[in-house]
Amino acid sequence: LLGLLDDPCALGVYGRDLRFETLLSGLSHAISALTWAGECEVVRFPPVISRDVVERCGYLHTFPHLLGTVHSFTGNDAAHAQLLEAVEAGENWGARQSLSDVVLTPAACYAVYPRVAGALAPGGRTLDVESWCFRQEPSHSPERMRSFRMREFVRLGEVDAVREWRDRGLDESASFLRGLGLEPTIAPANDPFFGATARFMAASQRDQQLKFELLVDVGSARPAAVMSCNYHRDHFGEAFGIRTADVEVAHTACIGFGLERIALALLAAGLDDQFTR
Amino acid sequence: LLGLLDDPCALGVYGRDLRFETLLSGLSHAISALTWAGECEVVRFPPVISRDVVERCGYLHTFPHLLGTVHSFTGNDAAHAQLLEAVEAGENWGARQSLSDVVLTPAACYAVYPRVAGALAPGGRTLDVESWCFRQEPSHSPERMRSFRMREFVRLGEVDAVREWRDRGLDESASFLRGLGLEPTIAPANDPFFGATARFMAASQRDQQLKFELLVDVGSARPAAVMSCNYHRDHFGEAFGIRTADVEVAHTACIGFGLERIALALLAAGLDDQFTR
Repeated sequence: LLGLLDDPCALGVYGRDLRFETLLSGLSHAISALTWAGECEVVRFPPVISRDVVERCGYLHTFPHLLGTVHSFTGNDAAHAQLLEAVEAGENWGARQSLSDVVLTPAACYAVYPRVAGALAPGGRTLDVESWCFRQEPSHSPERMRSFRMREFVRLGEVDAVREWRDRGLDESASFLRGLGLEPTIAPANDPFFGATARFMAASQRDQQLKFELLVDVGSARPAAVMSCNYHRDHFGEAFGIRTADVEVAHTACIGFGLERIALALLAAGLDDQFTR
Repeated sequence: LLGLLDDPCALGVYGRDLRFETLLSGLSHAISALTWAGECEVVRFPPVISRDVVERCGYLHTFPHLLGTVHSFTGNDAAHAQLLEAVEAGENWGARQSLSDVVLTPAACYAVYPRVAGALAPGGRTLDVESWCFRQEPSHSPERMRSFRMREFVRLGEVDAVREWRDRGLDESASFLRGLGLEPTIAPANDPFFGATARFMAASQRDQQLKFELLVDVGSARPAAVMSCNYHRDHFGEAFGIRTADVEVAHTACIGFGLERIALALLAAGLDDQFTR
């Protein structure tokens, strides 16, 4: 029905048929046509990221259960024989694997910060990024995929410029979804769509609303966040040594699109024809 | 130079700039225009796959070091506190993670076999699949990426039909690369580009040539395999209970395109303009 093919053995891991991919591709082009997208540096990232980045972001403080770490076999021939015996016997062979230097990407914007360490040019930077992301939350609900694509626009620079960009982006994001025929509700986030950090959460409760989600009907029991507009203050600037041209710690913000969730919302509302006809 | 952005902390994990992605997208469309592609069922898969599939394929027999298993934290609050201490102290915290039910996809075609278990329709099936794949082999050479995209055409059916499809596909694959301006060499495989299995390897030495690679200059010290044409005999049919309409064990074959490697070859030869101008 939805263009998704279950994995018989792994919840929340779906194949996508041609219609679903055509819809997602059309949606991606519509996002690229947003006024702000044309001014961005475009970078696409793989579905893995260095573990160091995630450790420094503080993701393990807030979402330890959601992270997928990548492990590999590093043993000799004798250990290999034992590994095969354990697999054959149906044992848990996880302890025979070693923690590697990469993890599955929790949020597309994380790949940006280590690559822009140092001083930004005057005016800062704005990037258009995308990657497959992973969340370890097996579920029967199609909108709770474990592996999905996230498109994000990331703004780095001085506090006022970044804050204003996020605020304007929130309005434009709601307009974008309405332009597709959806009816978004803007909500302060309490169940974050993107990875946040302990510091981030504390600041949000203490001070100002840093995270907004755009909720729409995705054909499930309750509306789901399909987009998120986040102001991180100086969290990533501090963690990765990103500075403005004036040598202040850079502030950052991002606007993220959950591509599969928007596609599911369009399918649920019968609005997919605008991209698939 | 090549449109790739290094990860400062993880070898073989690259960002891709707009030019590289435009090239890769143009290349993908050219592959879709191949005569055989129009007759296929199109499915796209995420970068993870159920661990069960990889265990049944025998990948751990042949390439134990290349597999990336996904682990996650399943502990309580006390264990979480210990996890954070270990991370903070720079300890190896791999043993605090548990083996999950998914692994990083080693080869795009693996996602197909469990989904087509049972009896095929008369004439069999042909699928056009793609996914991000992972190989744990950190390297400074850009053509040895750990995370990369693989497009594959997979044929399932009766022995003669599958064998003929692979043989014809090998010729057409070489023509395709020549049509791009590349100069492929066809070579029997000894360092497999795609996952093979112990049984597969033994059969190949014993009997007939099951695997061919198409090698081209990718701008490195030696030519690299950018495509692979593989006949698996009844290996996957046996492992996943795939049968022909006549209730024989199905035979399978696949033709795979290493998208980033072909892109690198086009860049190295100055042939990227056909897709990026």
